[in-house]
Amino acid sequence: MSELAVLRAFAERLADRARPIARRYFRAEAATLGLVDKADATPVTAADLEIEHALRDMIAETYPEHGVLGEEHGAWHADAPWQWVIDPIDGTRAFAAGKPQFGTLIALAHRGVPVLGVIDQPITAERWLGVRGEGAWFNGVPVRTRAHPPRLADAVVFITMPEQFVGPGAEAFARLRGACKGVAYGGDCYNYALVASGHIDLVVEMGLKTVDFAALVNPIEEAGGVAVDWAGKALTLASDGSIVAAASRALADDVLRVLRP
Amino acid sequence: MSELAVLRAFAERLADRARPIARRYFRAEAATLGLVDKADATPVTAADLEIEHALRDMIAETYPEHGVLGEEHGAWHADAPWQWVIDPIDGTRAFAAGKPQFGTLIALAHRGVPVLGVIDQPITAERWLGVRGEGAWFNGVPVRTRAHPPRLADAVVFITMPEQFVGPGAEAFARLRGACKGVAYGGDCYNYALVASGHIDLVVEMGLKTVDFAALVNPIEEAGGVAVDWAGKALTLASDGSIVAAASRALADDVLRVLRP
Repeated sequence: MSELAVLRAFAERLADRARPIARRYFRAEAATLGLVDKADATPVTAADLEIEHALRDMIAETYPEHGVLGEEHGAWHADAPWQWVIDPIDGTRAFAAGKPQFGTLIALAHRGVPVLGVIDQPITAERWLGVRGEGAWFNGVPVRTRAHPPRLADAVVFITMPEQFVGPGAEAFARLRGACKGVAYGGDCYNYALVASGHIDLVVEMGLKTVDFAALVNPIEEAGGVAVDWAGKALTLASDGSIVAAASRALADDVLRVLRP
Repeated sequence: MSELAVLRAFAERLADRARPIARRYFRAEAATLGLVDKADATPVTAADLEIEHALRDMIAETYPEHGVLGEEHGAWHADAPWQWVIDPIDGTRAFAAGKPQFGTLIALAHRGVPVLGVIDQPITAERWLGVRGEGAWFNGVPVRTRAHPPRLADAVVFITMPEQFVGPGAEAFARLRGACKGVAYGGDCYNYALVASGHIDLVVEMGLKTVDFAALVNPIEEAGGVAVDWAGKALTLASDGSIVAAASRALADDVLRVLRP
């Protein structure tokens, strides 16, 4: 197997390890779930902590020279060329509410560029995987974004919550809202997975953390879509957390024109 | 079996009939799905039409003297004492986006009062059922709302989309937003089911149609929660489509005080 194929198999083992932990905590009693707000007002549960701990252990054992950036436990070997980027539960609020739309996000980046991404949905047993230059898959079956997505005027923009748009970003999003067909709410990482699968066409967000967006890049781009920041630049681990994920280049360009001040 | 037990078994057969139809259309090609916007700008698909048609046929055959109110095909025997109220796919936008959070809603009302409600989730095979005076169940297991829900200041309010609040309702919702801990988006009928199961505590909406809310009443109230309109009145088929669904009377009262102008 090529080096990337070996790393892909390992990434799938990481996702396999996370699934039963997430399932064990899903809809658990409040005392077991342990939902608390962190200092930055984002929530965390015992499941987030246990999953990230388990995956970091696996990485440290198999690839001790690799770096790890995790949502809950921070950075390890931050200067290593290979970096694993983990959000143990993206959509912790949905998870804590008993909604199965959260996901475990696992990315691998080389010198800052995402080369592999896993979006895993533990409850419905759905896994999207993208590997740079090799393809994108849903539960092992190749996926493509929608072949003929609408242009912006006929497209629905998916976001998680309107409060994520602040400052000049809120003004830009207001312009986008006026230029599209409508806005749909909720979803977290699940929206991006549905772009890769060709079921929805457009997700536009801002304020995401590196652990939130790193795993989304390859599933979407390898499926034929576009995932860039609001300036239209390719996403790296250093991107600012603004994102346009579109089924086609033409649709992404429509959005970027409207977002530009 | 009592009359209500027989009707309950029949309601479950209706939901059983709907499930495979919804599953067949879920994530189908656009041409198969047939998503179009109706005159009132709400969407409909071939799945909505086929499910409602199938359920109306079953009702007409078994209970020809009963009335039926359906989302897509209107009212039949509107003056009959027993009325079936059907939303074949609540959350058509989510359904068409490939998200499994939509539901089939089936209610039975007697002289305008809901006495039985089914919230069925075809993809994850989840079914909430409430029967007036008899109980509420999730996949056959009795459910209760959260035993000690927070008061409003510490509660998250779940809604489907902010655009649903218009006119004086938008002002009232703005007051509620200022009085609660936060707002979570998306979910349609799934939010109400999660109140019945004790995973979330509060859903506040307005502008719902009778077919949207009739089936929610019994699962929540029989689980120990409260489902009323914004004036605090019990929900009937003639209610105005405003709804407060809360895990407890105390939490519902907190909300009603804030909503009142």
